[in-house]
Amino acid sequence: MSNSPRARFEAVFPVIRDQLLEHVKGEGMPAPALEWYRKNLDYNVPGGKLNRGLSVVDTVELLKGRSLTDDEYLKAAVLGWCVELLQAYFLVSDDIMDASITRRSQPCWYRNQDVGMIAINDSFMLESAIYRLLRVYFKSQPYYVDLVDLFHETTYQTEMGQLVDLITAPENQVDLTKFSLEKHRLIVIYKTAYYSFYLPVALAMYMCLIPESYTLSAVGGPRTVHPYVIAKDILMAIGEYFQIQDDFLDYSAPPEQLGKIGTDIVDNKCSWCINVALSLANGSQRAILDENYGRKDPVKEARVKEIYEQLGLRKVYSEYEEKTYKTLSEKIAAIPETDSQATLKREVFTSFLNKIYKRTK
Amino acid sequence: MSNSPRARFEAVFPVIRDQLLEHVKGEGMPAPALEWYRKNLDYNVPGGKLNRGLSVVDTVELLKGRSLTDDEYLKAAVLGWCVELLQAYFLVSDDIMDASITRRSQPCWYRNQDVGMIAINDSFMLESAIYRLLRVYFKSQPYYVDLVDLFHETTYQTEMGQLVDLITAPENQVDLTKFSLEKHRLIVIYKTAYYSFYLPVALAMYMCLIPESYTLSAVGGPRTVHPYVIAKDILMAIGEYFQIQDDFLDYSAPPEQLGKIGTDIVDNKCSWCINVALSLANGSQRAILDENYGRKDPVKEARVKEIYEQLGLRKVYSEYEEKTYKTLSEKIAAIPETDSQATLKREVFTSFLNKIYKRTK
Repeated sequence: MSNSPRARFEAVFPVIRDQLLEHVKGEGMPAPALEWYRKNLDYNVPGGKLNRGLSVVDTVELLKGRSLTDDEYLKAAVLGWCVELLQAYFLVSDDIMDASITRRSQPCWYRNQDVGMIAINDSFMLESAIYRLLRVYFKSQPYYVDLVDLFHETTYQTEMGQLVDLITAPENQVDLTKFSLEKHRLIVIYKTAYYSFYLPVALAMYMCLIPESYTLSAVGGPRTVHPYVIAKDILMAIGEYFQIQDDFLDYSAPPEQLGKIGTDIVDNKCSWCINVALSLANGSQRAILDENYGRKDPVKEARVKEIYEQLGLRKVYSEYEEKTYKTLSEKIAAIPETDSQATLKREVFTSFLNKIYKRTK
Repeated sequence: MSNSPRARFEAVFPVIRDQLLEHVKGEGMPAPALEWYRKNLDYNVPGGKLNRGLSVVDTVELLKGRSLTDDEYLKAAVLGWCVELLQAYFLVSDDIMDASITRRSQPCWYRNQDVGMIAINDSFMLESAIYRLLRVYFKSQPYYVDLVDLFHETTYQTEMGQLVDLITAPENQVDLTKFSLEKHRLIVIYKTAYYSFYLPVALAMYMCLIPESYTLSAVGGPRTVHPYVIAKDILMAIGEYFQIQDDFLDYSAPPEQLGKIGTDIVDNKCSWCINVALSLANGSQRAILDENYGRKDPVKEARVKEIYEQLGLRKVYSEYEEKTYKTLSEKIAAIPETDSQATLKREVFTSFLNKIYKRTK
């Protein structure tokens, strides 16, 4: 047995990968194609922070309220790796669309020798691996179709978010009139929050046989709970908070703390920071933002940051964070709980919230 | 009512498209994103030959043995358009991977103003539309999960075929030692035959509630039939035959008859023609093929064609066609038939075969 939750989760990956390769081999694919697919999986799927994948396992454990059997652990970990495969599908293709250079401290997959645009088909195969794994591990389960439908819905939502982002903030065509806090919220919810926050938790809920609705006795009579609706509402809000933090840290955190150099301003990103600034700027400040945002020039970047400071972005952020933490805590406290199996637990959400609150990297 | 089967099928597309847009609008997507998605759908989904989509409708009619009710027609047409969406997903992305210039007499989607690499996400959204439509039209049907699983399996197989093709025949790295008739067969089966031939028929079979197996009384006792296995076996063979024809016509048909100029030789395609030639060539002929195949030079192309003529490729083809037609006719004749509903019918396959046999374009 591995000694950390992360190491135990990571140890499942080679098992899954070899099953995928064994299946493809059984279909008659020649050795060079197998080797290619193995490299694609190894290069693009593990190696990230694995927060999304691990949160499936954590949530299953919290919902069951006990440690998992080996079979339960494996199933939860497979779902976790399916989320990581979905993420890999998006990242491999996003890097081509954004003409990115590096990812996770190595060259983006498409920039490897001989890969190039074949990376598009490689990203497709990462997505297909999800449904292959669901079929192998869950086909006989009553919730199989729920898992498949949820992956589809989430994928579609993420693609919509990506489309809005791509046409709102093209890297080389600065037009701040396209930006707004509302647009920012839409992009964050669709492009990030669904697949990063709601998907892992909802997968765990299906695996724990939590039904679409159940009734609890309460003061004043029985109360019907819609656990997936509650989970989505809270997790979308947590996801938005997480991304706003990310945007704020990109601007405010020292690189040695953040582990990377923030580039949102020069990359013309539709970040929370620029949207808040746009909402607060007077005419002359607005003109400075228009002239300096999204340009590959450190002097212009510094001009934008000056305006952010003038407008008191740090204070706006810290007020936002306190208010959000309070609202979320209240929402979580309002979840009706019982000791019975297969119902929602507050701890699922508090554990997310506490990992995020006041993070600095 | 429209006056041709094709026109009737085409008339369903705007209905489907508007439903997809309505749903995305309901998710809160802003107008420019809706407009973009509408253009993506209109530009890439209709406008092809529609053989694959129409064959779903035709097969449902043949299996039911009567004309369809309006509801049945709509369902069959939706499945047909789902196949066309899958095809669009592959074509939009293949055109980027192959750096193609035109498709269906217009610029490839990615070559349009402002599109570029956003076309990758656009191709993803075409795929997601399939599962959205299946959910809207078929979620309550007992065969819903079969449709979804079949689309996944077929997609994965096509991607495998595409991978083998991409690493076997990269356009700018000629290496004929990678080619073989066996490799050609593998690429054809996986990259084309599954989604073009098996998928449409199997979808129609599910819609007609044909079970995985059934038992018929026969001389010598009852006989168990596995209709999907039979259909796959025959349709893979028909698909291979179709692609070999395609390869042969690319080389042999006059452009005015074919409707386009064949480019397989200059594009280094792993075509049936070059593989037959490689299997028959002597040492000096082989040297000529090695030096002239896959080069953007009409003189070199002509040298390859000379070798094809020397090796009697036309005769090899016509013998192949006769033999294949005979084998397929026998296989089809061996399908056990009854008048009962929800069983396989020979006519499904003869109608495919007769559309293809001795075609010249």
